[in-house]
Amino acid sequence: MSQGTSTNAPFAAPGSPADLEEGSALTPKFYADGTVTCVTTDAASGDVLMVAHMNAESLAKTISTGQAWYFSRSRKVLWRKGETSGHTQRVVEMRVDCDQDAVWLKVEQIAGACHTGRRSCFYRAVPLGQGASAVKLEFREERVFDPKTVYGKK
Amino acid sequence: MSQGTSTNAPFAAPGSPADLEEGSALTPKFYADGTVTCVTTDAASGDVLMVAHMNAESLAKTISTGQAWYFSRSRKVLWRKGETSGHTQRVVEMRVDCDQDAVWLKVEQIAGACHTGRRSCFYRAVPLGQGASAVKLEFREERVFDPKTVYGKK
Repeated sequence: MSQGTSTNAPFAAPGSPADLEEGSALTPKFYADGTVTCVTTDAASGDVLMVAHMNAESLAKTISTGQAWYFSRSRKVLWRKGETSGHTQRVVEMRVDCDQDAVWLKVEQIAGACHTGRRSCFYRAVPLGQGASAVKLEFREERVFDPKTVYGKK
Repeated sequence: MSQGTSTNAPFAAPGSPADLEEGSALTPKFYADGTVTCVTTDAASGDVLMVAHMNAESLAKTISTGQAWYFSRSRKVLWRKGETSGHTQRVVEMRVDCDQDAVWLKVEQIAGACHTGRRSCFYRAVPLGQGASAVKLEFREERVFDPKTVYGKK
């Protein structure tokens, strides 16, 4: 799907595959919904904390401020991680992938990234080697904060 | 967007937020395009190797075989990582996130994950603290294989 300038601004529109892969210009290739995927890892442990999305504005704000800003695809709003909870993410390093449709943030995470109270959103393992319908998820992380206290009652 | 059974099979349709977050059933919440996001990290180094997508079939095949299978959103095809290059991914551990719309694979990566010849697709850093249009990407990884040899001439 072609991308108008308005979707990409303040970034330039993506060029050829060779430019995207081997160039030094950041020209993100936003998906049809106007976002790139963002993987956020803990700079200390290396664990994946969360996966979220960024539109052009949240990507630009993350770069300029060094704090993680995302875009909610369901609520269609820009949000700064931790603006409600105080559990902010300071970006230690940002990377972009080969075709510039995904970014990787290594962050210093205050408390936990997950709204359920865990440090990481990926607190359950999926056992392998069986039929999909037989899978029983295994919990691997304890809560590091109480979501009722932090966010109020659900 | 509601998801018909056909999109989710062989998985059951997602339940309430409480079931998704605190249950032990794997009931992936596929996006409007029928996929979940997959983050793949190197089980040894912890580095993010790639971000890709999985439809229900590729997710089920990954679980049953312990090898990484993805779904190309642009080409609309299922693919097993390494089927052309030989650079397969054996899954050491799989995790699912709180709302079950993303999975994390820790893998043993043969050679490199990136079609450009690098070990990781995230071989460029984005410097922070400046306006988005001024960003000049910094290369951080050397090639570990020659893509022309592995994939033939582009």
